[in-house]
Amino acid sequence: MKHLLTITELHNEEILEILSEAQQFSEGKIWTPAKEQFVANLFFEPSTRTKFSFEVAEKKLGLQVLNFETQSSSVQKGETLYDTVKTLEAIGTNAVVIRHPQDHYFDELVDGISIPIINGGDGCGHHPTQCLLDLLTMQQEFGKFIGLNVVIVGDIRHSRVARSNADVLKRLGANVYFSGPEPWMDETMVNGNYVSMDEAVQFADVMMMLRIQHERHAFKMISSKQEYHQIFGLTIEREAQMKPKSIIMHPAPINRDVEIASSLVECSKSRIFKQMTNGVAVRQAVLKRALQLKKEVVLNG
Amino acid sequence: MKHLLTITELHNEEILEILSEAQQFSEGKIWTPAKEQFVANLFFEPSTRTKFSFEVAEKKLGLQVLNFETQSSSVQKGETLYDTVKTLEAIGTNAVVIRHPQDHYFDELVDGISIPIINGGDGCGHHPTQCLLDLLTMQQEFGKFIGLNVVIVGDIRHSRVARSNADVLKRLGANVYFSGPEPWMDETMVNGNYVSMDEAVQFADVMMMLRIQHERHAFKMISSKQEYHQIFGLTIEREAQMKPKSIIMHPAPINRDVEIASSLVECSKSRIFKQMTNGVAVRQAVLKRALQLKKEVVLNG
Amino acid sequence: MKHLLTITELHNEEILEILSEAQQFSEGKIWTPAKEQFVANLFFEPSTRTKFSFEVAEKKLGLQVLNFETQSSSVQKGETLYDTVKTLEAIGTNAVVIRHPQDHYFDELVDGISIPIINGGDGCGHHPTQCLLDLLTMQQEFGKFIGLNVVIVGDIRHSRVARSNADVLKRLGANVYFSGPEPWMDETMVNGNYVSMDEAVQFADVMMMLRIQHERHAFKMISSKQEYHQIFGLTIEREAQMKPKSIIMHPAPINRDVEIASSLVECSKSRIFKQMTNGVAVRQAVLKRALQLKKEVVLNG
Repeated sequence: MKHLLTITELHNEEILEILSEAQQFSEGKIWTPAKEQFVANLFFEPSTRTKFSFEVAEKKLGLQVLNFETQSSSVQKGETLYDTVKTLEAIGTNAVVIRHPQDHYFDELVDGISIPIINGGDGCGHHPTQCLLDLLTMQQEFGKFIGLNVVIVGDIRHSRVARSNADVLKRLGANVYFSGPEPWMDETMVNGNYVSMDEAVQFADVMMMLRIQHERHAFKMISSKQEYHQIFGLTIEREAQMKPKSIIMHPAPINRDVEIASSLVECSKSRIFKQMTNGVAVRQAVLKRALQLKKEVVLNG
Repeated sequence: MKHLLTITELHNEEILEILSEAQQFSEGKIWTPAKEQFVANLFFEPSTRTKFSFEVAEKKLGLQVLNFETQSSSVQKGETLYDTVKTLEAIGTNAVVIRHPQDHYFDELVDGISIPIINGGDGCGHHPTQCLLDLLTMQQEFGKFIGLNVVIVGDIRHSRVARSNADVLKRLGANVYFSGPEPWMDETMVNGNYVSMDEAVQFADVMMMLRIQHERHAFKMISSKQEYHQIFGLTIEREAQMKPKSIIMHPAPINRDVEIASSLVECSKSRIFKQMTNGVAVRQAVLKRALQLKKEVVLNG
Repeated sequence: MKHLLTITELHNEEILEILSEAQQFSEGKIWTPAKEQFVANLFFEPSTRTKFSFEVAEKKLGLQVLNFETQSSSVQKGETLYDTVKTLEAIGTNAVVIRHPQDHYFDELVDGISIPIINGGDGCGHHPTQCLLDLLTMQQEFGKFIGLNVVIVGDIRHSRVARSNADVLKRLGANVYFSGPEPWMDETMVNGNYVSMDEAVQFADVMMMLRIQHERHAFKMISSKQEYHQIFGLTIEREAQMKPKSIIMHPAPINRDVEIASSLVECSKSRIFKQMTNGVAVRQAVLKRALQLKKEVVLNG
């Protein structure tokens, strides 16, 4: 399987292999494909981190980069995603990175497209490279996942990314807890592991804050950002209660003084910008895996 | 003459030279200019195929690529096309590729601009690299144009691209026929060579389907897409009537199940994605020609 | 100091050093950094000249270029400029070029950002590389600034760019005069050096025309473009009165037949496109300075 569509489809061994490769890239390893390769980035939703992180990763690998701008493409003329990707394949693209607002957009692609598809995020569904960079950040910090206490804070119910992250962390051996407004919890998911923020900061190794989606209905239920911050946010007072070697993570973009106090964004426990740095190394590893696997398929085929 | 503005301006020998060069590129030939060269792509209309095809061609030639985004340029401040291109020339661009909604936009450029202009499509006027990639696809398939039966299907009257393609095919020795709704035909053009779709599929070597422009008045005259497809489309039934070695072409983007049955887009007779692949090779040849001719001018000047 | 934020912050010696380096680049000097470097261009306002001039400069220096498109970024989700630049730093960008509509946007950046910021224009505040390319153009022409008669024509009051240019020219030894509608003059700036256009063309070595901002209130006070051109524009008749070795400059985009007669844009006295060519060399010099200084900081740090 050459695509990277969801984190769920990866076995533990595959995940650990990607992390190992990514760690090497983060330490300066250089790898470039034997011959010129083209990668196209198709971002159908606004993105800074993910898009540029992929672009830097691609350029570090010496790949030729095609940046597909939705506004100036034939998507404006009603062309389907399948025909767009098939076109990119026809003109010599060796892999595509796609972010798209529709959940499981890739279901209509996988049968007919013969180049690797790397999912840069689909709707509120999956975001496998975000998950991998989160894992890399924890692994660098703690050297292991077994027994790690991770508290995920935010809208668990509507964030399948949070849910698939939680699943992966569990199968890697971590203890996963949840915090946030109760209407945002999912009982089958949480399964008794709900903690208040005041409890969470006492024992968490990792406080994994989710971004609040302003546009979501759930957010409108909150009386005010200040109140959210006081009850469910990582306040300056709560940070002071955290264990000495614990860390703070957030996928960004950050709502400062909502999920987390603005002054904590760059505090000594924060790994928020480290996560972004790791994102490049993870994407180098994922791209190398896609382009190499493709080569093998060609050799066998 | 270093520009490439219309297919009409090219002699048969020039066309065959470009096709020969393109064929070599399609077989893996590598050519890069002796020193660093910059090319700017100015697309004032949405495009996927043409834009990325040029970008891949440019990068395969080792050129430095500047992608001009209309929305973020001084065109927004009312700057003329001439001043925009003159600016790109002043900052060191060695050639420009332009797609523009205005017919013959290049008429205001050719006197003052001293770098080659490659027309990536003007209004509904000309699209010389599309014509060349169509020719390359036919030449690869049949090895000759003389005596080839080509049926062009669609809005002939309003598509000068179709008309200039027909002219070039005729002067290269092909027999050109037309099909489609009668109000879309042009008598002086068709000149007795109108055939029904049911007739066409019997004798055509090439079924050259044109894209239906949804936004055009003519399209609104059609009672329904289903009806168009039944009368003027390449249906599954009609494809079964085609000669063994005949092929299907379409410039894309495709209106699936209108011009052509969706399931035929990737059928064994379809060269639709092959055309896109050939587009890269043709654009490599055209860019090489423009940059080399420019060099000669400099050497002599 | 590794940033380049305003021209005011540069000593005369620093300015002359940059001009000397730029002159070498304009004569074909090649310099590339020892290892791969990434530069991001963040343009929050439309721009053709400045943006592509930086991009060409970057590519001539062999830098990896990230083009940040505002429309497709997380700025759309309300991310702050600081968090955006910090993100780019985290993913491995070595310098950023920023154009932003807000005056002194960089004030919120300089404390937390540890990569060089090159100001590509802030609001109606500063535009240091434009100033430097103007200076390079004059230096190439006259070999000196001392005693040079420069007449700046246009909206002096609302253009701090014009004001900082005037300040720099004065401290380099030039005689600076002003012309244009009186409501656009600033008494403390002009300080008796107001001249009419008919006077100006008699003695000016440099007629430095400013662009009229259509969107500004002041412009709406003008009864008509034709009237402005007759009274304050560089007409064909006035050009004929200019001294033999005098030159015409304009930052562009040009309002043809308003600030300057259309037929003069490419006349023998015009250095308008030469300014653009010089812009690339100046930006190469500025980027080299930023990336080299950064390296020194790292070595000492």
